[in-house]
Order: sequence, then structure tokens, then C-alpha cells
Amino acid sequence: MASRNDETTFGENVHIYGNVKIGHNVTIGDSCIIYDNVIIGNDTFIGPFCILGEPLKDYYINKNYSNPPLYIGNNSIIRSGCILYAGSEFGDYLETGHRVTIREHSKIGIHCRIGTLSDIQGYVIIGDYCRFHSNVHICQKAIIKNYVWIFPYVILTNDPHPPSDTCIQGPEIEEFAVICSGAVIMPGVRVGANSLIGAKSLVTKNVPDNVFVLGMPAKIIGPITDIKCKNGRLSQPYPWRLHYDKGYPWQKQE
Amino acid sequence: MASRNDETTFGENVHIYGNVKIGHNVTIGDSCIIYDNVIIGNDTFIGPFCILGEPLKDYYINKNYSNPPLYIGNNSIIRSGCILYAGSEFGDYLETGHRVTIREHSKIGIHCRIGTLSDIQGYVIIGDYCRFHSNVHICQKAIIKNYVWIFPYVILTNDPHPPSDTCIQGPEIEEFAVICSGAVIMPGVRVGANSLIGAKSLVTKNVPDNVFVLGMPAKIIGPITDIKCKNGRLSQPYPWRLHYDKGYPWQKQE
Amino acid sequence: MASRNDETTFGENVHIYGNVKIGHNVTIGDSCIIYDNVIIGNDTFIGPFCILGEPLKDYYINKNYSNPPLYIGNNSIIRSGCILYAGSEFGDYLETGHRVTIREHSKIGIHCRIGTLSDIQGYVIIGDYCRFHSNVHICQKAIIKNYVWIFPYVILTNDPHPPSDTCIQGPEIEEFAVICSGAVIMPGVRVGANSLIGAKSLVTKNVPDNVFVLGMPAKIIGPITDIKCKNGRLSQPYPWRLHYDKGYPWQKQE
Repeated sequence: MASRNDETTFGENVHIYGNVKIGHNVTIGDSCIIYDNVIIGNDTFIGPFCILGEPLKDYYINKNYSNPPLYIGNNSIIRSGCILYAGSEFGDYLETGHRVTIREHSKIGIHCRIGTLSDIQGYVIIGDYCRFHSNVHICQKAIIKNYVWIFPYVILTNDPHPPSDTCIQGPEIEEFAVICSGAVIMPGVRVGANSLIGAKSLVTKNVPDNVFVLGMPAKIIGPITDIKCKNGRLSQPYPWRLHYDKGYPWQKQE
Repeated sequence: MASRNDETTFGENVHIYGNVKIGHNVTIGDSCIIYDNVIIGNDTFIGPFCILGEPLKDYYINKNYSNPPLYIGNNSIIRSGCILYAGSEFGDYLETGHRVTIREHSKIGIHCRIGTLSDIQGYVIIGDYCRFHSNVHICQKAIIKNYVWIFPYVILTNDPHPPSDTCIQGPEIEEFAVICSGAVIMPGVRVGANSLIGAKSLVTKNVPDNVFVLGMPAKIIGPITDIKCKNGRLSQPYPWRLHYDKGYPWQKQE
Repeated sequence: MASRNDETTFGENVHIYGNVKIGHNVTIGDSCIIYDNVIIGNDTFIGPFCILGEPLKDYYINKNYSNPPLYIGNNSIIRSGCILYAGSEFGDYLETGHRVTIREHSKIGIHCRIGTLSDIQGYVIIGDYCRFHSNVHICQKAIIKNYVWIFPYVILTNDPHPPSDTCIQGPEIEEFAVICSGAVIMPGVRVGANSLIGAKSLVTKNVPDNVFVLGMPAKIIGPITDIKCKNGRLSQPYPWRLHYDKGYPWQKQE
């Protein structure tokens, strides 16, 4: 396997443009492309076939285009085939799956995980310790607070009258919220703290804190604390932070 | 960044097979693979890791396989990681996201945009000025007219009794129709001109022109002209072409 | 096109790590990466940009990490951009689309087809002659028997109380079942033999053998033998194996 010493390791056929800064003990995989003005922290792993600092649309139009900086933090694992656009900023301990796309002007906190094939459309703010599973679609202007979980094929939308230029409103997802597989969040909707959005729900209205909603359109089923464990292995499944600590600041030492 | 002069620029490790014709002022990104019989117009940008002229299934079976031609037009932007099969034809001013797959025997008009991870299964006819967002799935034999919008995770299907060989019927989407995120269009369904399909709808029957449908199964809510703007920024959201002109032939000069 | 003689053909810029065994008449596409302990059978085609033997999470943590073996069979076609993790095992005659991800400790039978962008999360057992269309999401610990069909954007889920560590229960899909586009199968659910899950259904309870279910939540509509052909081309659409034999052991000679 690739050697991991204290210095940076470059794979084969890596293509690095100008003004790139790479920290200590970084691995850059085969065939990676790193465009202008990318900054990578220490102890970070970049898998093969990644594109870092992907240029914005203006690059194709404007002869004087200058690539805005992309900041990648320390201790991160960015798996193969990811495309991170120029102009975004990632906190330390990022971990991605494969072939993730994250567009420009996104600000992502520390200890986030973003699953394979997820598509983050740019101009988003994502807090710390967020975990997105595979194939999550985050629209422009979404705001996602700390400790949010989003499961596969969830779609956050921002245009109430598509196509429009003037109506865009990103959804806002509060701390500890959980959005289950295949749910769609409509434009401008606020999902309350600790709330749980059931699989395949269409969320058309604001969701209060601490409730479970489900359906198309989603309706409030009740407080999350009323949810019973289906197979008896948990005394109380929600709020989830009371029984799940893996990788979180409140993780117990064993 | 890559220089853009009047001549063609090849990235590193580009692999070009036989009988490829490339126009003036074309950029071919790193590690691209261009198979036999690909024709690329002028002033076109091909991002890294693209595969153009991907061979058809017969290539793996038939020793005498010959790759049908792929035509890519002028003034196009094909972003990284796209796979365009042999035997398709694209009009000028195509713009794609990343890792789009478009299979054989597809005919796509001018000024189309096809978003990241979209998957077009081949044998389709797509008109001019169509705009597909990320992760759109277009089945074989679909017919999509001019000025259609399709949003993320929409699925067009063609088999009423899967799996079958004998029942395939592609849907037909008429001009100016809008299909919102997560909707599924059932086989052989016609979506009428200007009509709006709400998010997550399951469209099982033909949709008349000029109506808004929603639900699972989708039902007619009313004429599109009855839709009011939720945040008051538009006097009448639909038909959308009356207020949205960005990049269209009816765009006003500023 | 790539020459196909009796010996193995390596594309350009292929990167092969240690202890890799490759059979006769194998084609390895441009820029492929093959990590430690990969075994490839005879007469197999690996498209460009594939990663075989992708290391497990432990690789990033443990200095003494050793890559478990990946077995790829004979007569397989693995199209471009696929990522097959170390520690999985594939039967002969596998055929994939592009950019498929299959994680560790998966066991997949013979004659399976897995479509473009499908995402198999590992620790799954998949039988023989299964056919997954594009963009299928299979959760960890799913069990899928022989002759199952799964259509685009289907999601199999395994966590009844996400996020949890202790509740994981993979679904079980029985022989000849068909799951249509956009359906979601909830954790631990058993889908009966020959049964048909309608498009966009949310399957929350076990489905008996030989029935058609539909809706959100899915309800039994009736026995599959009651389904009539919508366009009159089939006398009885289900069970599908009575009229569809392409590529199956019961295929008639012509």
C-alpha cells in the first residue's frame, strides 16, 4: 500500500497548478488534479482521481478569471473521485465517501462526514459533526446546524416556483435533527432541533422542535420521546444523542 | 490555469483512438479517453477524466465491432468525468455537470444543460434549451420537447410490467413542462405543455396542458395560472417563461 | 479500439500494487488502480478509472493494516469508474455499469448485473442472476436471493431508529421479487418470492409471496397473477419468468 511517512506522498500522474500549499504528512492519490490556490492542512489523505479547486463557471467566460482559494483542513480523508470547487472552506477531520461533489462558497465545519455521490450545490453553511450518508442532495443556500444526520437520497430544495431567480429560499435544519431516506424538504422550510423526518416524507411546512413527522405531505405524529424501540434493544430511541456517541464530543471512554 | 489560445490544448495522459476529429480552440482535460469516430466541434471544453465515444455492448461480444460516430457540437462545456457513448449526437452550446452518463443513439438539441450525475439511458430524443438538474434519470425511448425543466432525482420510466421486452413505452414531455424533484413519470405517460408536476409526485396518467398536478398518484390541482407566489416576489409564477428568460432566445437585453 | 488477443492487455498509467493475480485474456483499462491482494479470473474486462481492492477504513488508522482479498470472477465486464472494495467476492459473468461502488465483505453470485452509480454498502449477500438497474442503494446486511430485479433509486434501509448501532436489521428479498423505481424498503422487512413492489412505495411490513403491493405505506393490491397487461402485448405479465428469459438459465434456444 502507499507508504505513510512524515512527508507528503504524491501518487502517479498528479497534476498541480500554481500557488498550492500542502501541509505535512499528506497523501495525494494517483491522477489527482489540484488547481490554483488550494490549501491543504496536515495529516490529510486525498484519494485518487480527486479534483481540488475546480474552477467556477466564470472560468469559461472570463479571460481574467482568478480561482478563489479552497481550504481543506487537517486530519481529513477525502476518498477517490471527489470534486471540491474553489472558494469553499472545510474544517478539520472531514471524511468523505467517493465521488462527492461540493461546489463553491460552501463553509463546512469540523468532523463532518459526507457520503459517496453526495452533491452539495454550493453557497451552503454546514455546522460541525454533521453526517450525510450516500447520495444526499443539498441545494444552494441551505443552512445546516451542528450534529445533523441526513440519510440517502434526501433532497433539500430552494425554489418554490421553479424555475425562478427571485424566490430562492434555502431550508434550515436545526441541531440534532435527523432526516431519513428519500425525504424531500421544500424551500425555506425550517426543521426543528432534535426532530425526526420519516423516510420518503415531503416536508412542506416548518417542523417544530422535538417532533416526529411523516407522510406526503408530512404531518406531526407526536413528540420524538413517544417513539418506542421496535425490537426492544433501546429503552428510548430519541433523542438519539442519549444513546449514540460514536465519534462525538460526548463519546464515553472505554 | 489551462491556457486558452486559438488552438487545441491537450491535458496530460490523454488517450485518443483512431479517426477522431477535433475542431479549433478545443480544450481536452487530463486523462480523457476518446474512442474511435468521435467528432468534436469548435470552442468546446472537455473536462478531465471524460470518456467520449464509449463503446456499446456489442463491443464486448463481436470481434468485428465498429464504433458508431459521436458528434459533440461547438461552444460546449462538458465537465469532468462525463461518459458519452458512441452513436449519439449533441447540438451546440451543450453544458453538463460532472460524471454525467449519456448512452447510445441519443439525439440532444442545442443549448441543453444536463446536471451532475444525470443518467440518460440512450435512444432518447431531447429538444432544444432543455435544462436537467443533478441526478435526473431518463429512460430509453423518452421524448422530451424544447424548453423542458427537470429537477433532481426525477425518474422517467418505460416498462409497465418490469421486466419485459415487449411493453416498453417511453414517456413524452411537452414544451415548457416542469417536473419537480423526486417525481416519477410512469411508462407511456404524456406530460402536457406548460404543465407543472409537483415534487415527489407519481404520475400514472396523461397530464393535460397548462395544469398543476401533485400527489401519489398525481391529481390535477388546477390550472397553472391559478398558482399564487408564496413570497410575493412574482405577480404570476406560471407560465414560467413570462418571468424567466436567463439564457433563452427571448432573453431581454440589459 | 483496444486489442483483444489471448493475453492480458494493460491500458496506460495502470497502477498495480503487490500480490495481484490476473487471469488470461483480461483487459485492464487506462488509469486503473489495483491494490494488494486482488485476484481476477479469465476473460474479464476492467474499464478505465476503476479501483479494485479499495482499502477499508482501518487502512487510515492502523499502521499494520493488511488488505483482505478481492475476488473477481471469469467472463466479467466491469465498466469504467467502478470501485470494488477489498474483502468482497464476485461470481463469474458479473456485468456492471459505470461508477458502481461495492464495499467490503460482500458476496455476490454469478451472472449478476449492477447498474451505473449503484451503491452497495457492504456486508451483503446477493444471489445469482440478480439485476440491479442504475442508482440502486443496498444497505449493509441486506440479503438478496436469486433472480431478483431492482429498479432505479430503490433504497434498502437497515436502521429502524437512525442513528443507532444496536438496531441494524437488513431487509431480505426473496427469489424472483421485483422492486420498482423509487421504492424504499424499511429495515428488517422481508419481501416475498415473486412479489412486485410498485414504484415509489414505502414498504414498512413484510410482504407475502406472490402479491403486488403499492403505496405509502405499501398495501396489498392483490395476487400478482391478477395483474392484466396494460397494452395487451402479454397474456399474463406476472410471474415474469413465464415470459421473460433473456440471459436466464431457462432461456429458449432460437
